[in-house]
Amino acid sequence: MAEEASAPASATSADVARLAGVSRATVSFVLNDTQGHRVSEGTRARVLAAAAQLGYVPNAAARSLRAGRSNLVLMPASVSAVGRLVSEWVDDLVSELERHGYTTVMHAGRFDDPLEAARAWAELRPAAVLSLDGDRLTPQTAEVLRRAGVRGMLAFASHPVDGVHTIAFDHASVGATATRHLIDRGRTRIGVVIPSERGLDTLARPRLAGAEQVAARHPVTVTPVELAYTRESATALARRWRELGLDGVFAYNDEYAALLMHALLAEGIPVPDEVAVVGCDDLVLSALQRPALTSVALELPSAASVADALHALVARGTAPGVPGIEPALVHRQSS
Amino acid sequence: MAEEASAPASATSADVARLAGVSRATVSFVLNDTQGHRVSEGTRARVLAAAAQLGYVPNAAARSLRAGRSNLVLMPASVSAVGRLVSEWVDDLVSELERHGYTTVMHAGRFDDPLEAARAWAELRPAAVLSLDGDRLTPQTAEVLRRAGVRGMLAFASHPVDGVHTIAFDHASVGATATRHLIDRGRTRIGVVIPSERGLDTLARPRLAGAEQVAARHPVTVTPVELAYTRESATALARRWRELGLDGVFAYNDEYAALLMHALLAEGIPVPDEVAVVGCDDLVLSALQRPALTSVALELPSAASVADALHALVARGTAPGVPGIEPALVHRQSS
Repeated sequence: MAEEASAPASATSADVARLAGVSRATVSFVLNDTQGHRVSEGTRARVLAAAAQLGYVPNAAARSLRAGRSNLVLMPASVSAVGRLVSEWVDDLVSELERHGYTTVMHAGRFDDPLEAARAWAELRPAAVLSLDGDRLTPQTAEVLRRAGVRGMLAFASHPVDGVHTIAFDHASVGATATRHLIDRGRTRIGVVIPSERGLDTLARPRLAGAEQVAARHPVTVTPVELAYTRESATALARRWRELGLDGVFAYNDEYAALLMHALLAEGIPVPDEVAVVGCDDLVLSALQRPALTSVALELPSAASVADALHALVARGTAPGVPGIEPALVHRQSS
Repeated sequence: MAEEASAPASATSADVARLAGVSRATVSFVLNDTQGHRVSEGTRARVLAAAAQLGYVPNAAARSLRAGRSNLVLMPASVSAVGRLVSEWVDDLVSELERHGYTTVMHAGRFDDPLEAARAWAELRPAAVLSLDGDRLTPQTAEVLRRAGVRGMLAFASHPVDGVHTIAFDHASVGATATRHLIDRGRTRIGVVIPSERGLDTLARPRLAGAEQVAARHPVTVTPVELAYTRESATALARRWRELGLDGVFAYNDEYAALLMHALLAEGIPVPDEVAVVGCDDLVLSALQRPALTSVALELPSAASVADALHALVARGTAPGVPGIEPALVHRQSS
């Protein structure tokens, strides 16, 4: 490996071989767990001890070049867009993938152009790409990844995409579920919160579209309202609420819903009497708000089933279907 | 590159060179932005167009082997441990690092053994490792990373570590700040919440130790209380609160504090009259709780200053100091 002059010297597999008194091939067999080569337990222990003593680290880059594939799973997602609901689930998924021998990394780069994003992901030569907001995986980006040797592509997405194993997650149906409930509660002028925070509108826009589809079948209006996740933004919105004249709101998720609800209450606008508020994710804190927050609950498939599907895609190019995410309304006092 | 028989064929730089009518070296100069080689704009445009047409992706693994270093920044952290406060900041940091030409990935693997963790990080051959809870970067793990060619090591940590650029973040002082406040408010039997969720005790234990250090100088007891982030766990804790006989609690962060406070109120235990509650992070929602939540605010250094320091470490092996995180108490109604 060509090191820059200023880079510290790393132990090589040759150093390990010399210290253990074995060939480099044996070092490689032991450290890469190569199948079909028999190495005695004594030799194996000597090699591992020598590698530990020298601080030798097998190079994933070299290994990836040799094998033509890596054990890397890339998850494109900004940390702030992974909400409270999903973060524990992502931790579980990482554990399940570790069980299958994969290393998972989250890639948080922001790209306006999906093809540019796919090229950045492809540069890391992952074995698989798993997208939580999968409408970013288009047939074109899937093709870039496929050409780069990515073997497993799995996405939560509203529609099937060629070459991508899709787990159904239709954000429009989330917005529709909230809106149907607000209409059932007699509301006719419905606001839909669009968070100003970057990265969230890929989820918020289809939720708004779902609300609009339901409203179109009723004498009901839908008005998008922008809200940043700050007290200042929530207070400003609450102060012009009566100009907007909205009697119900689907507030993107429970965090934005709680923020807006408290700002409305602070401005003397009663919830639910004057405005019914609905969130999403059914977070732990939502039932504890006063008034307790109505929410759209999302049941996620088990992390193990998703990890199994991803591994099947990498190993065999095909995987059984995984049940999609179904929204369900949890009615509480805020609506 | 050795491909497995079943892997899809990828376009190579030779294919790009053929289509653009230039040498492979020229393709390499253009696509790797190699310094000190002049390529005309016309040639450059031809190479880029050919690469785009063929869906050619330069291989980060090959590039890393050639150059002896990568442009990868590895951030070891589980997604669920990165709270609401930090997640936006992490997004900013990723943007700032992108500005310097780095790709940042979060590595969420859990390791009981810090050396095993360091070896897993080193396998990805990153240019830099940035640890948010840096007490995981010991002199031994730093040595493993250094030998693997990692040039920048930066950590938020309570104490300086040899070979690691440290930004001071002393969790003990967070616990101490909360405890001093509770003592000022006349509380003498103080609980400190330890979250049951994995990955959080590396932060919670030093916070507890800081509380104990302050309490030791007063006629005050400190009792660790375990709490999972679920309504069931909070209700169970609230129901045995009077057996515990605690009149104040530092609840790890604002999310656990809000959860516990609402559970106490639901069990008829008045806050702050019977129990004073203090959180941490001064989240947006905390001032909107009823009663409004007292919190320890943490001022983070700018993402740009941290990105600049990391780049300086990679490029020059040395960087100017970055101001540490100082806790500051924000007093509200819950205490």
